[in-house]
Amino acid sequence: MTYIKELSCHWLANIKLSRIIILVTLTLVVVPIFTHYYLSNVERDAPLGDIHRTRSKLETYEDFSALKATDLKMRINEMLRIKGSVSSELRDLENKRQRLQAEVAAYAHKIDQLKLDLLHQQTELDRLKLSVEQAQMAYREAIQRNTPDLSPPLAIFASSPPSYNVPPLTKSSPCRLSSCFDHSRCALTSGLPVYLYEYDDMLPISSFLRTGILQTVGYNPHYTSNPKEACIYIVLIGEGEGSVNLSHLKKLPYWGGDGRNHLLLYFSRQDLSLKYVPVSPELTSRAIVVQSTFLFNNFRRGFDIIVPPVLGAPGGDVWEEAASMLPARRKVFISFQGKRNAVTIKPGIETDDDDEDFVTEFNLDEIERYLTWSTSDEFLLETNCMGPELDNNEWGLCGSLTSRAVILKDSTFVLIPAPSNSSFISTSIMLARLYEALQNGAIPVIIGADQFTVDLPYSEVVVWKRVVIFIPASRVPEMHFLLRSFNDADILFMRRQGRLVWERYFASLQAIIDTIIAVMRDRLGLPPRPCSDIAAPTYPHDSVPVKPDAAVEPEESLGPLEPPYASPTYKRNYSVFLTQGFEIWNDWGDPFKLYPHLPFDPVLPSDAKFLGSGVGFRPIGGGAGGAGKEFCESLGGNHPREQFTIVMLTYQREQVLINSLTRLQGLPYLNKVVVVWNSPRPPLLDLHWPDIGVPVHVVKAATNSLNNRFVPYDAIETEAVLSVDDDAHLRHDEIMFGFRVWREQRDRVVGFPGRFHALDLNHGGWLYNSNYSCELSMVLTGAAFIHKYYTYLYTHWLPQAIRDKVDEYMNCEDIAMNFLVSHITRKPPVKVTSRWTFRCPGCPVSLSEDDTHFQERHKCINFFTQVFGYTPLLNTQFRADSILFKTRIPHDKQKCFKFI
Amino acid sequence: MTYIKELSCHWLANIKLSRIIILVTLTLVVVPIFTHYYLSNVERDAPLGDIHRTRSKLETYEDFSALKATDLKMRINEMLRIKGSVSSELRDLENKRQRLQAEVAAYAHKIDQLKLDLLHQQTELDRLKLSVEQAQMAYREAIQRNTPDLSPPLAIFASSPPSYNVPPLTKSSPCRLSSCFDHSRCALTSGLPVYLYEYDDMLPISSFLRTGILQTVGYNPHYTSNPKEACIYIVLIGEGEGSVNLSHLKKLPYWGGDGRNHLLLYFSRQDLSLKYVPVSPELTSRAIVVQSTFLFNNFRRGFDIIVPPVLGAPGGDVWEEAASMLPARRKVFISFQGKRNAVTIKPGIETDDDDEDFVTEFNLDEIERYLTWSTSDEFLLETNCMGPELDNNEWGLCGSLTSRAVILKDSTFVLIPAPSNSSFISTSIMLARLYEALQNGAIPVIIGADQFTVDLPYSEVVVWKRVVIFIPASRVPEMHFLLRSFNDADILFMRRQGRLVWERYFASLQAIIDTIIAVMRDRLGLPPRPCSDIAAPTYPHDSVPVKPDAAVEPEESLGPLEPPYASPTYKRNYSVFLTQGFEIWNDWGDPFKLYPHLPFDPVLPSDAKFLGSGVGFRPIGGGAGGAGKEFCESLGGNHPREQFTIVMLTYQREQVLINSLTRLQGLPYLNKVVVVWNSPRPPLLDLHWPDIGVPVHVVKAATNSLNNRFVPYDAIETEAVLSVDDDAHLRHDEIMFGFRVWREQRDRVVGFPGRFHALDLNHGGWLYNSNYSCELSMVLTGAAFIHKYYTYLYTHWLPQAIRDKVDEYMNCEDIAMNFLVSHITRKPPVKVTSRWTFRCPGCPVSLSEDDTHFQERHKCINFFTQVFGYTPLLNTQFRADSILFKTRIPHDKQKCFKFI
Repeated sequence: MTYIKELSCHWLANIKLSRIIILVTLTLVVVPIFTHYYLSNVERDAPLGDIHRTRSKLETYEDFSALKATDLKMRINEMLRIKGSVSSELRDLENKRQRLQAEVAAYAHKIDQLKLDLLHQQTELDRLKLSVEQAQMAYREAIQRNTPDLSPPLAIFASSPPSYNVPPLTKSSPCRLSSCFDHSRCALTSGLPVYLYEYDDMLPISSFLRTGILQTVGYNPHYTSNPKEACIYIVLIGEGEGSVNLSHLKKLPYWGGDGRNHLLLYFSRQDLSLKYVPVSPELTSRAIVVQSTFLFNNFRRGFDIIVPPVLGAPGGDVWEEAASMLPARRKVFISFQGKRNAVTIKPGIETDDDDEDFVTEFNLDEIERYLTWSTSDEFLLETNCMGPELDNNEWGLCGSLTSRAVILKDSTFVLIPAPSNSSFISTSIMLARLYEALQNGAIPVIIGADQFTVDLPYSEVVVWKRVVIFIPASRVPEMHFLLRSFNDADILFMRRQGRLVWERYFASLQAIIDTIIAVMRDRLGLPPRPCSDIAAPTYPHDSVPVKPDAAVEPEESLGPLEPPYASPTYKRNYSVFLTQGFEIWNDWGDPFKLYPHLPFDPVLPSDAKFLGSGVGFRPIGGGAGGAGKEFCESLGGNHPREQFTIVMLTYQREQVLINSLTRLQGLPYLNKVVVVWNSPRPPLLDLHWPDIGVPVHVVKAATNSLNNRFVPYDAIETEAVLSVDDDAHLRHDEIMFGFRVWREQRDRVVGFPGRFHALDLNHGGWLYNSNYSCELSMVLTGAAFIHKYYTYLYTHWLPQAIRDKVDEYMNCEDIAMNFLVSHITRKPPVKVTSRWTFRCPGCPVSLSEDDTHFQERHKCINFFTQVFGYTPLLNTQFRADSILFKTRIPHDKQKCFKFI
Repeated sequence: MTYIKELSCHWLANIKLSRIIILVTLTLVVVPIFTHYYLSNVERDAPLGDIHRTRSKLETYEDFSALKATDLKMRINEMLRIKGSVSSELRDLENKRQRLQAEVAAYAHKIDQLKLDLLHQQTELDRLKLSVEQAQMAYREAIQRNTPDLSPPLAIFASSPPSYNVPPLTKSSPCRLSSCFDHSRCALTSGLPVYLYEYDDMLPISSFLRTGILQTVGYNPHYTSNPKEACIYIVLIGEGEGSVNLSHLKKLPYWGGDGRNHLLLYFSRQDLSLKYVPVSPELTSRAIVVQSTFLFNNFRRGFDIIVPPVLGAPGGDVWEEAASMLPARRKVFISFQGKRNAVTIKPGIETDDDDEDFVTEFNLDEIERYLTWSTSDEFLLETNCMGPELDNNEWGLCGSLTSRAVILKDSTFVLIPAPSNSSFISTSIMLARLYEALQNGAIPVIIGADQFTVDLPYSEVVVWKRVVIFIPASRVPEMHFLLRSFNDADILFMRRQGRLVWERYFASLQAIIDTIIAVMRDRLGLPPRPCSDIAAPTYPHDSVPVKPDAAVEPEESLGPLEPPYASPTYKRNYSVFLTQGFEIWNDWGDPFKLYPHLPFDPVLPSDAKFLGSGVGFRPIGGGAGGAGKEFCESLGGNHPREQFTIVMLTYQREQVLINSLTRLQGLPYLNKVVVVWNSPRPPLLDLHWPDIGVPVHVVKAATNSLNNRFVPYDAIETEAVLSVDDDAHLRHDEIMFGFRVWREQRDRVVGFPGRFHALDLNHGGWLYNSNYSCELSMVLTGAAFIHKYYTYLYTHWLPQAIRDKVDEYMNCEDIAMNFLVSHITRKPPVKVTSRWTFRCPGCPVSLSEDDTHFQERHKCINFFTQVFGYTPLLNTQFRADSILFKTRIPHDKQKCFKFI
């Protein structure tokens, strides 16, 4: 050790001190740097928490200081070299890694795409299989089918006028339809041809009636100008004051000896006194008498027809003449206005008058004594007013039409005296009172009679119990108690029903003529003439194949793609009036037309489809039920298979339309797309119409009208109509689900965009509201299913004023449709799934954006309310979702739809 | 510079080299340590990314090497000291920080709790405010109310028997209700008391009828044993062969001179020949004749009553005697069996027979010629069979009851000849054929008549068009075409309707007697007797206050907590038969009872509530509508405010029950909880019944029966009944939503657990299925809303066999309820929200778990199908969710419910 010391001292002594200093300095510089480099590396690799460990390592490197400088330098250089090589190697590796990663990503993408493609192909295959199965099933059904497809009945007519060789009528038995009517002229398929005599020389008839009858019978679809083929012959024999000399009837060219199949019309109009035609077999023989005034003994029930007096216009809409239905309780609880001459001797006509056993006659003048002791109800009883006197002890009308209307519009109930002379089953003066009461919304209380002693017009088909209250004379003391017990809902029900009867069967000459013919038709068991589709002139076009946009539609097999299958039509021509005649006459109010199908067609029991009535049914899982997979394969439900038609209104937005059409490719159960081309400019010839697998009919609209959305085009061959805006974005699964919900609620509007009518808290009346809300009353037809039936009603049945308003504003057709459907059904619409808006992003701004549009919609609701006399819209607080939506289910199960 | 160098060299030369070396070594050791310490400190403070900057700083510290050693040492020591103090300071700070952090966390927690509390209080306050508002509104309404609360009418009776001092009947005018009936004995509030004569000595009447009438009239709720107060007097005057000597009638004690208000019953039973009582005014005078055979000329329409012959049992259920309704098309398309003696001379009774003008008579024997040219339809026409001969040219029945039934059960249509003698409007032989046809499901085709020449029983209330097809003689050639055009749905509709008519109005003596009285009641405009609630004997109990479990119920203000408000009852006593009489007689089939409310009560128009009929209505946002907040404050919808009753069946699971009850605290719109205590063991006295703010009635059940779930207890005072299992877990928001949906669909079962009936693909028949599926047909009443009306029907209207089966299996009551409701409405139930199961976790296993239970449910569906004659269940493919469920809405809006 000392030797070494000495040696080093010697060496130190020999070298220059300056060098030592330089060396030391160098060492001092290098060592910290190196140390730090090392430490840094250690720290860089070590997790943060390891710093303390690193610091303790530092101590162990103190012996670096003992290293020789050259050694140190060398090692440093070596290390630097290693470091260089290592870092370059690292760079290479990094590059390689990145390259590999990119490759992997590319492959993964490719695999994903392949998978998607596979799924797509699989779905397509499933779809095809399904479609094949469906086709096979349809084929089998077509073979097994044992009912022919029925068309609207073709008319088969008689070929000669009535002959004379029938036995004469005997006096003893009254005429009935089976004995006095020649059914052979009215085959089931004849369509009930009706002929009108035009003889103008011998009748004291006003020109109003003369031309009115000519026109209204001419407008009736049963009218024929050929007397040889006619089933029914109409003769106008008189009006009020005078009538034809009945003996002249025998000279009518088709009288056939006894006037069979003849309707003798005798209308009351201005003069409402007791004039009536006595139906003596000698004169009228087998002809059917149609008038307002009948004697009980001469009225041949089921043969003669009681009609209201003709107090309205010749035809057209009548809503403006009717009173509003609200409020339910009006200012005056019961009113009566009448005048009768003091002489109370009743001119008995063909009857004895001493059956005054119980209280069959009561004194209307004394009726107050049963009312005045009551509470706060107001009465208006006027028995001595100005007005024409009737000479037969009947109560005459007071004042003018206008003055009476004022009173009636203020009355909840109105008393209508039954004929004073109880031999009459009906009088024109009573029916005139009834007419005015119904028109003005006062509920008629026929006092002094029950439903059997007095008969009202068309009583074999119109249920008068819903409209009129009968109070027999002996019940008059109980009348106030009885009427007081009616709640608001029933009062409004009766008023609404009364308006329906008045509007459809009373209010115009056309209504009366149509109803008379419809009553005859009903008696004979014949169907009405079929309602007419509107022919759709089309723009022909080619179509180009398009590729489905897989990104837009979720890959789900939603059902089979089948060849077009039109809904069966006219399957109930001869049964619908049996099973649903009541509803047709009294609820829906349209017995004048035969519809190809109704949203109210009865459903089969659920076992029927497995016991002989299975044709067309597609039960889920073959009847075993099931979740998503089986569900999507079949329509299921309570109705046989069917398809739907998409009706799309468009106006000069070609590309938007084409995009919308393209998205429909592969949509199951789609029968056809009807594009209503509202623009007067025909579509460009180079437009690329997509081939979407079903026909696309481009209908040339007559005018640019939003009412065209609901025209019953003949091109629409299904019951279900999906009405969509050309810019609406609906996914296929949404459409499928909507279709299934509609199939259960065929009488309602079933769709996506919900809206509501809200009370204007500041100004009264209604406001249209499109905010998010928890209660709805409308579903917009920009994306909704409706039954084709409602397109007939919209176009032919709704008052013209509504369609005019739609054209005036270029707006509100959807509100009108909601009013119409809720009015008929008294049900709210059904909103499906969560969608509120459907506009495509980036589409040109549509009509519905600006504020004017919104203001108009407020006005529409209030105007339509006026037309209907009330607001038919009803509220609903729920939404239809698919059954397993957002339900946690086991892995092996499948939801009904992926996203809804 | 050289001077300094020299100086240092000199100094270096003077000191020992060894010292230099030591110093250098020391420096080498110290400097790295110091450097590292410094660097460490720097790096500890610096963010990781700053390491590079730190490394560059290192270079600047190279001049440390120039420091003197002692200085260095001192400084090192100082630095070490500083380091020590700094780190201890740091430790202190760290402790402090942690302490502070803990405190902050504690405060934050406290604030959160306070916030929650605030929310809770706020909700509570909102709820209270709402409740106050509601109370004020109810108070205002109570003051403004202008209709009194109506109770079921109390009976007001006449006090003396009919007097003799009324004028005698004149011959000329036929009796009508207004002239021949004494209304004064039948005040609107009299309840129509009916008295039955018991005189047994002078009549040739079988003991069957004699005792039968006694019993059936006695069972009728209108029966009175006090002749002084009676409105109607019933006299049995004969049966088939013989009748009372009519001159004896005058001796009846309450005949009153003219037999007014008397019903003379003359039943056909075994002998179906043409016997009838000629209604001559001298003998029957003002009495109403009730029989099966009437001459056209003697039948006083609206006065006399046509009844079917008495061919059934005295009373009881009749479903076993009826045929299944399926398949729609049976083996034989049209059948006829009849025998008639060869003599075709018709014994004309009071009529001339020469009105054979058109084809009013046709030869049934020749009918084949109109049929045989047809396609594959089978016919069975037997006109020469074994059977008793009728002596009046009428077609007699063939074979036995059994042999005829075999044929009829195989026939789709059956021909029923109208009376050969056209003077008859109805004959007992024709009605017997009608009876058998309806019973066996063959659709009656009355041939040779129309609806006006032949009259059928109770035709003023029963719509025969829905049941029977009339073919006038002249239409016979068209008959096959006509019947062929009927589709399966209409055939089944008519068959179902025929069965309803037969079952309710034909099938037993009780049915006939009840119907006769109901027809009289209907004519007089009186309501039926109210249906009876079942008195609920209760177990009294105390209740203890409970704290609401905030964790279980989401904090939502779902509606006001109001004092109990019973649904108004008997509001339509005198109007329901006017506005809905048609449906009562022909759809619902129960005109024998007055119900306090119906699920079919008409809705008011949506504007009525703002125009005078607003009492009780709670429009959302006061009519302005709105989203979640406004929605939860009001019930809205189309019906006035109401509450619901929870009915909970329990059997020896006290704790489960108590827990379920406790969870009901604070549930808005809850009126009452009715716990049906099915166990014979009364509840333990120390049971802690929770005080949940509404009364809890514990009803002592007579027997342990699942039928008790649907007993119309008088304790149930609301229309809405929420039927729940005692272990059902439903959240308040779910209940609220279900209630709102039910309010829109009051005639349906609206609830949570959906099930369906599936075809058994292997063995035929139905299987009960509780799997997840996309199509439902039942909603279990373990958690469902139903209308109280259906509990009346379930208990009194359903055939006993169904309730017996429920008791036999201790199972299936929910299936029975679904059958019942779908049968009445022909609609499927409504499932709400996504829940499928409701069992509380850890509850004792309930009945419904094991396999036997499941097997029984299969059997139940098939058995009930037998009883109903078809499967009334219908399918539904959607679910009701709240409108904004899972909808993305703006921040300022609130969903209808937080979770649904």
